[in-house]
Amino acid sequence: MKKGFVTIKDIAWELKVSPSTVSRALKDHPDISGETKRAVNELAEKLNYQPNAVALSLKQQRSNTIGIIIPEIVHYFFSSVISGIEDVAYEAGFNVIICQSNEMANREKANVKTLLASQVDGILVSVSKETKDFSHLEKILKNKVPLIFYDRIVPGFLADQVIIDDFDAACRATRHLVDSGRKRIAHFAGPQNLLIGQQRKEGYKKALEDAGIHLGETLVYNADNFEKARLAVLKILESGTDIDGIFAVNDLTAIGAMQTLQKRGIKIPNEVAIVGFSDGRFSGITDPTLTSVDQHGYEMGTVATRMLLKRILSKEDYPCETKVLHANLIVRGSSQVS
Amino acid sequence: MKKGFVTIKDIAWELKVSPSTVSRALKDHPDISGETKRAVNELAEKLNYQPNAVALSLKQQRSNTIGIIIPEIVHYFFSSVISGIEDVAYEAGFNVIICQSNEMANREKANVKTLLASQVDGILVSVSKETKDFSHLEKILKNKVPLIFYDRIVPGFLADQVIIDDFDAACRATRHLVDSGRKRIAHFAGPQNLLIGQQRKEGYKKALEDAGIHLGETLVYNADNFEKARLAVLKILESGTDIDGIFAVNDLTAIGAMQTLQKRGIKIPNEVAIVGFSDGRFSGITDPTLTSVDQHGYEMGTVATRMLLKRILSKEDYPCETKVLHANLIVRGSSQVS
Repeated sequence: MKKGFVTIKDIAWELKVSPSTVSRALKDHPDISGETKRAVNELAEKLNYQPNAVALSLKQQRSNTIGIIIPEIVHYFFSSVISGIEDVAYEAGFNVIICQSNEMANREKANVKTLLASQVDGILVSVSKETKDFSHLEKILKNKVPLIFYDRIVPGFLADQVIIDDFDAACRATRHLVDSGRKRIAHFAGPQNLLIGQQRKEGYKKALEDAGIHLGETLVYNADNFEKARLAVLKILESGTDIDGIFAVNDLTAIGAMQTLQKRGIKIPNEVAIVGFSDGRFSGITDPTLTSVDQHGYEMGTVATRMLLKRILSKEDYPCETKVLHANLIVRGSSQVS
Repeated sequence: MKKGFVTIKDIAWELKVSPSTVSRALKDHPDISGETKRAVNELAEKLNYQPNAVALSLKQQRSNTIGIIIPEIVHYFFSSVISGIEDVAYEAGFNVIICQSNEMANREKANVKTLLASQVDGILVSVSKETKDFSHLEKILKNKVPLIFYDRIVPGFLADQVIIDDFDAACRATRHLVDSGRKRIAHFAGPQNLLIGQQRKEGYKKALEDAGIHLGETLVYNADNFEKARLAVLKILESGTDIDGIFAVNDLTAIGAMQTLQKRGIKIPNEVAIVGFSDGRFSGITDPTLTSVDQHGYEMGTVATRMLLKRILSKEDYPCETKVLHANLIVRGSSQVS
């Protein structure tokens, strides 16, 4: 699988220069002309040259290390996924290295480069909110390194994936608000370039339609963090828009909304009921405690890692697999009138 | 700096066998006798052979990647440190890979191995609560890879370090409780094999002594997480021990204590005032909000990374440096009677 890597000698032979010239050109050495550097770098890119190819071809074996690309470590959901990944990986004798994209497409690209240079045997990716071009992810497959998407996938990209049924979970979360008598339910939505943002909104709309509540997108707000939730609530209050429920795309958004409403003297859940998504570590310590969708982050990590190890250890290719995990709604004080 | 690595040839020469025998022995190849494997592995260990030495000596250049070993990613403080590290590193053209020890000495050892195999140019370490043997950290220096400790250091270990003045911060946090009239102040303490656990306790004791309050260790409880805090509070209540303040070693411990007291009908801060440590993301959303020590995680990350880059880029050796950051107490509702 890791045979036939391009070496410095291949590039030198092709360009009719010495290997040491190629080596120095790749290192941006001052002795080498700009023209040569350009030619070397272009060919290296074209031939998919990897700096460690020599070591790889010498080793002809696994590094027993897998890589994770994670959008934001600070989210409890993602740190739970990491725990799940690590527990399965270490148990199977694999080490784990983590790269954080911090929701930036450029860092995600750098992450891929770093993990490939570290000779990982496979990579688990959840794409950043900003990623719109996927060539760096294609590069992973081109390098014959198995790739698994977890949580945030790229539709149409041929790789194994583990996802939560976000549509179904959002539908159930919204139905819970409908069942508790709410009729003017707002949705604080995530970015619509991400499938999870789309599906959570669609689930919300479906539940309302099923209940004969025709709001369309009139109460959908673009708010997916604490601060944006605060601003969205202020906008709602200032415009005099009537709401009696909020389904938020994640917990921090829900908590930001709850706090801002409370500061204006609005009672939760009596006047406005709130449901979050992700069931973070802190949904139990707000006042009232927060109703939320448990995303099973740890389970997602374990499932994704088992899929990755299967790919790494398999001697043959097989069709891509998709695993769908079902989320539970954890009902707490923010939506339950006692 | 990365010259003189031991290669497979060196081992072969020393043992008077062929390089391919050494290579296969290291890969545990069935054709090689147990005796030869033992001899090869023992010598490889003794000479500090690294599998990628060939690639390294070919490259003779930096990987432009630095490694982080972090105890628990789920803590807001540590994820802030990571953000600080990443911002400085990426700005300087370095990539970052993260390994989580999850407070396990064995995983920390595996982390070091993984980062060295990934040819990082330097490593930032905060030691796990469980680590008592430090040979894996010595191995980093033996490999001539710069090492910086942040937050949790190893006393007497010759490496650069960035720390918070925990003693001073704990002293000020406790003095704040004393100044607000509290006399029966408990300390929920961290493990005493970690310097930060020791220093926070010593700061607590110093503030009490300065105020003429002689409690010794009678109100010190071994509790450094949510659940242990709950148990410690139950113990206090069941034994009828009188307390009017708690200084907790971290925020989650403080929040666990607060919640357990509130569930028993005890008013915060009127009956018991509470101060945490670390000023996490959620100190602002508890009810009441939590007074806490701001540990400047982001700043710690930036300072540590600048120290590391200086080491990596320096052509000569220089004495180890220690930077001490001063923490601020953020007074909020849990200690302030309005």
